[in-house]
Amino acid sequence: MERLIIIGGGAAGMTAASWARRLKPNMDITVFESTKMVSHAPCGIPYFTEGLFDDENLFMTYTPEYFVEKRKINVKINSKVEEVDLRSRTLTVRENQGNKKYEFDYLLLSTGAKPKKLNAEGDRIFYVHHPADASYIRQKLWSFDKIAIIGGGILGIEMAEALRARGKKLVLIHRGKYLLNKMLDEDMGKIITDKVGSEIELKLNESLISVTERGRLIVTDKGKYEVDATVVAIGVEPNVDLVKDQLKIGETGAIWADNHMRTSIENVYAAGDSTESINIITKKPDWVPFAPVANKMGFVAGNNIGGKDVTFPGVIETMITKFEEYVIAKTGITENEAKRHNIKTVSATVHHKTRARYYPGSKDIIVKLIAEANTMRIIGAQIIGEEEVLGRLNMMAAVIQKGFTAEELFFVETGYVPPVNRVWDVVTLAARKLYTGISAE
Amino acid sequence: MERLIIIGGGAAGMTAASWARRLKPNMDITVFESTKMVSHAPCGIPYFTEGLFDDENLFMTYTPEYFVEKRKINVKINSKVEEVDLRSRTLTVRENQGNKKYEFDYLLLSTGAKPKKLNAEGDRIFYVHHPADASYIRQKLWSFDKIAIIGGGILGIEMAEALRARGKKLVLIHRGKYLLNKMLDEDMGKIITDKVGSEIELKLNESLISVTERGRLIVTDKGKYEVDATVVAIGVEPNVDLVKDQLKIGETGAIWADNHMRTSIENVYAAGDSTESINIITKKPDWVPFAPVANKMGFVAGNNIGGKDVTFPGVIETMITKFEEYVIAKTGITENEAKRHNIKTVSATVHHKTRARYYPGSKDIIVKLIAEANTMRIIGAQIIGEEEVLGRLNMMAAVIQKGFTAEELFFVETGYVPPVNRVWDVVTLAARKLYTGISAE
Repeated sequence: MERLIIIGGGAAGMTAASWARRLKPNMDITVFESTKMVSHAPCGIPYFTEGLFDDENLFMTYTPEYFVEKRKINVKINSKVEEVDLRSRTLTVRENQGNKKYEFDYLLLSTGAKPKKLNAEGDRIFYVHHPADASYIRQKLWSFDKIAIIGGGILGIEMAEALRARGKKLVLIHRGKYLLNKMLDEDMGKIITDKVGSEIELKLNESLISVTERGRLIVTDKGKYEVDATVVAIGVEPNVDLVKDQLKIGETGAIWADNHMRTSIENVYAAGDSTESINIITKKPDWVPFAPVANKMGFVAGNNIGGKDVTFPGVIETMITKFEEYVIAKTGITENEAKRHNIKTVSATVHHKTRARYYPGSKDIIVKLIAEANTMRIIGAQIIGEEEVLGRLNMMAAVIQKGFTAEELFFVETGYVPPVNRVWDVVTLAARKLYTGISAE
Repeated sequence: MERLIIIGGGAAGMTAASWARRLKPNMDITVFESTKMVSHAPCGIPYFTEGLFDDENLFMTYTPEYFVEKRKINVKINSKVEEVDLRSRTLTVRENQGNKKYEFDYLLLSTGAKPKKLNAEGDRIFYVHHPADASYIRQKLWSFDKIAIIGGGILGIEMAEALRARGKKLVLIHRGKYLLNKMLDEDMGKIITDKVGSEIELKLNESLISVTERGRLIVTDKGKYEVDATVVAIGVEPNVDLVKDQLKIGETGAIWADNHMRTSIENVYAAGDSTESINIITKKPDWVPFAPVANKMGFVAGNNIGGKDVTFPGVIETMITKFEEYVIAKTGITENEAKRHNIKTVSATVHHKTRARYYPGSKDIIVKLIAEANTMRIIGAQIIGEEEVLGRLNMMAAVIQKGFTAEELFFVETGYVPPVNRVWDVVTLAARKLYTGISAE
């Protein structure tokens, strides 16, 4: 009987396990998960911290028992893989009863990402990453009054929303010139920066020097902040320590894999946040540690392990977050990134509304589209709005992935009904501006 | 100086006028509009009837004065074209001062659509079509107690919402087996039929025999209904009376035009609801009388008249409407239509939610996707949901127009943030079901 071992029971690992099981009903499939949760994703932690729900089991799409009973997958929680030998195809796992050795025919590395750490220690320093820690962190954070958030990326602003809603006094310290500067161009990022800055204390362009006093004293190149606790949200990195000397690591620092999620070692696969991919636009290695990509990589790995030839098309870096009433999204590349890749671009931005002029409750929506100048293919989109952002984002992801020109996007037969749109959709208008070069009303 | 005359100041006509003006600053452009409004669309009438707004000027995107002053377009309202001679390039217009003759070099026929009429007369029979009549109709309808709506298509259910909100006692009489039967397949249409039927009296499978007593007595093949007034919403037809004997009329009954919006007569163009197009999926003539198509046809006509070569890609029949909390949409073809065109299909339907399991306020959303069986290209989508329908509809329009396979749609890098989505988007799940043939949770 073929043995598949999966290290990491997050989105990618459990998706792969499920698809391998469907295709190979007799395969022996074991998942080792170091925490008590599987099929989890950290995306819900800010909303749990905000107090929008209390049951931490809701972080899991399915429970370990579900996988064991319904899908005949051996899920071992609280089981940390201590050592892997890819050559002898064995691994050592620390389980409740002590260390145990396993052999595999197929291995999937879905070890995920881990938060980047400060060079500082203290019981008032909190990293928000794994749902298994969410209850502890929430209980702690709720007990403090003044909290610093280090980092103005997606997690930073989500935690800012959450802690502000809990009535905390916040200071958000960010190294960049504006918030979400890895996700948005400055013109769009400025809108969010102004919004967040109108509600909480914002320190931009500040580099961290030290966090001391157990997490209660922050010193930057511009100031000192005394707080009760520090939340660190300075990004994540691929969790590859277990295998990094035994297989090819890509230039992003994540595990290299081909478009079948095969690593450089035969029958060893990688999927999810631990894994590098290729950017469809730049054709360069890229690393996108978000759940939808992890799930699809897991699908591809599971199918290929199961014997079905399925190809992962690469990534375009779709991102979406929310700060209070603003949903903020991007897909494809920004103008900033395009410059770094020497891609000449043109862009068009349209401020519009989500409902007909006369229909009550109309909200703002802003769309920025970016096209490659010589082909006029759409390569990036940034959207900020109070409703109907998600669908337009996904539309733009489809458009970018398939290489629509601005003209083709303009001519998409969009829908119109007054309660949910304007007759010229904001995306159509932005495409028209790119296509015609005319900024018509 | 070149003279362009445009008959009809609706969406298509005014868009064409504006783009011709941009490209040919010296062209003499005159628009004849028979009513007092231009740049109008009937889509707002149900919401005006519902009482959601009171200013009928809001039906117009721009006023006649705006076009005259800002765009140097001679807009003549209350000016009905009585006769056109395409051979001698002249027309006769009934204006306030009496009939007047005009000559043209270019002509655009954007005469729109008109409601299909009953074979019945009476001052209690109302056709909801032109914004210019909206105030009169609303005032009348508000004064009645019991109202019949004939027709269960888009306008029928929008008027049902409006009049129910005004506290009217309604009976909706529909010839079809379920509501919206030209837009949705039965499985999806049933959901809306049940919803509407739970709130108003619904008579399905009933054929009209007569409407008498000035609109107060309706007789069908199954019953008699005494009401105070009758709203007729049995569809529209292209308004081509003026020219139908002088140029090629397509098999849909609308004016035939090529992909540059040129009719069979040189320098005579057609655009908007009066004009036929080609369906991108079936490659057959099709007629789509909705504002986004009209606007884009107007854009194409205006550009080509202005000397710029722009091609209209054809239509896919995108439709969207709302009944109370349900937004209802479709694009591409239904399974019903596919059968008529002898296209073999497979379909997948997914019932899902719009937010993460743990995020408050999650709403239902249902997506049905239809693929051509032999190519697995997506050719149709039907969506019913309480939020985020519009963007997903537009995504599917892009997907269908460009011929994505189910596999390609599945691999679109969709976005995920808990307040506005699930990690597997409903569209991704439906695509996965089509692509894998497996109905996995």
